[in-house]
Amino acid sequence: MVVSVAYLGPQGTYAEAAALAYTNNLAEEGGEKAQLYPYPSIAQTLRALAQGQTHLAVVPVENSVEGSVSNTLDSMWELPTLQIQHSLVLPISHALISCAKSLATIRTVYSHPQALAQCQGWLEQSLPSVELVSTDATTEALQYLSDQKTAAAIASPRAAELYNLPVMACPINDFPENSTRFWVLGLESSKSGNQTSLAFSVPANVPGALVKPLFCFASRGINLSRIVSRPTKRAIGEYLFFVDLEADAKEAAVQSALEELLTCTETLKIFGSY
Amino acid sequence: MVVSVAYLGPQGTYAEAAALAYTNNLAEEGGEKAQLYPYPSIAQTLRALAQGQTHLAVVPVENSVEGSVSNTLDSMWELPTLQIQHSLVLPISHALISCAKSLATIRTVYSHPQALAQCQGWLEQSLPSVELVSTDATTEALQYLSDQKTAAAIASPRAAELYNLPVMACPINDFPENSTRFWVLGLESSKSGNQTSLAFSVPANVPGALVKPLFCFASRGINLSRIVSRPTKRAIGEYLFFVDLEADAKEAAVQSALEELLTCTETLKIFGSY
Repeated sequence: MVVSVAYLGPQGTYAEAAALAYTNNLAEEGGEKAQLYPYPSIAQTLRALAQGQTHLAVVPVENSVEGSVSNTLDSMWELPTLQIQHSLVLPISHALISCAKSLATIRTVYSHPQALAQCQGWLEQSLPSVELVSTDATTEALQYLSDQKTAAAIASPRAAELYNLPVMACPINDFPENSTRFWVLGLESSKSGNQTSLAFSVPANVPGALVKPLFCFASRGINLSRIVSRPTKRAIGEYLFFVDLEADAKEAAVQSALEELLTCTETLKIFGSY
Repeated sequence: MVVSVAYLGPQGTYAEAAALAYTNNLAEEGGEKAQLYPYPSIAQTLRALAQGQTHLAVVPVENSVEGSVSNTLDSMWELPTLQIQHSLVLPISHALISCAKSLATIRTVYSHPQALAQCQGWLEQSLPSVELVSTDATTEALQYLSDQKTAAAIASPRAAELYNLPVMACPINDFPENSTRFWVLGLESSKSGNQTSLAFSVPANVPGALVKPLFCFASRGINLSRIVSRPTKRAIGEYLFFVDLEADAKEAAVQSALEELLTCTETLKIFGSY
């Protein structure tokens, strides 16, 4: 069987590197072959999986400098339950890619907003007066660079190789310990693992609405390795919570916490253990 | 006395509207006059206050659609303790401002990344092939619009008036119930109020490190109205937590929770009650 994998494309993105790392490992373990399909946005990547166009999807979840990737969390909440199959962390090294003669002739820098943010100190110092342009993926602008000698893009050194473009500076990320965590998602219920992810909304305008869900875990000594709030988009001060537990959903304590959680949340989505 | 107020400028930003709403109220209550000073970024606005250049600073904290403003939280953590004096919520209505003849002739849209994100549905539908350019403030590009007939900016209708520019469409935000919360910050310790904000880091690689701080509040029935994690920027999976409590720091239960919190956090910053 060939496993089809949707990822945030085009070729050369960090998400593609993560998808390759995962599928190469699959191939070594069980001989399964994989075919990768790029999608232009995180929402479209996850929608492709939810609609059954692919078996798996690989999307970024959080970066060590910029934090959670809001688009991923928002899409996971909106789509029918996607299940996390695997989590993997990739080191991130950003390169300034351009056909300009020198830094001084660069007028515009294109990249994904997170990559621009991760290099903002370097950009302020080295290219203080350039225009920063947001793109859907780090590699989106690479196809135009050979014609635009005053433009640059921030992407991976591998992307520069793929597009046969020169790297002017690397690494340019402000924090050298820069890494991104990716989730491999599928529709099959996930296997066991020592991490469990879930999300819930709490009833609006109920005092103590968040303390109860947190108490379900705290009172059982289940640690949360991450808790992220996202707005419900209905009114200010109304949130969804995305929580990672350091435990397997199959453990008795977690089972009992999840049962109690059902009684004090409005909507509860369990993304599985991995 | 004239109260000096730093805000995320230039003139016409939503932060300026929030600063005006706050200082007009001050003037009505006690006759204190205010002078507003625009700064080009959130970090610089907060640094101006921390360095004593102004008495107060007004910055956005969270939006009902896009969530927390990371730059504000990250700067508050890095600077010597700033104290929250007041919190206020403004409804947000985004306008497409341009001197273009029609939507069809627009090639570029400039705005702050959060404003671009809040209008992404409208932009995909009405201007599917334009380039989106991030700016430090929603109003940054307005000064160039009269010369660039193929450019547009997303800012408030008030900004269009201030710069004497035409509004082509309004509102264009995807969620009509769009509002932003602002904090008014100062260096004086804040007064009382039924909300308290704080932030803490937890020791790295200690199992159960987050459950203990949460338990300090949960076990005393103190509700959290918001909890936001931000990366420490040292390593993936290491976070700071920003927490809003629905209680006054002067209450006995909160005092006792904060004492216990000191024993299970690495660094604890209390931003005051308001």
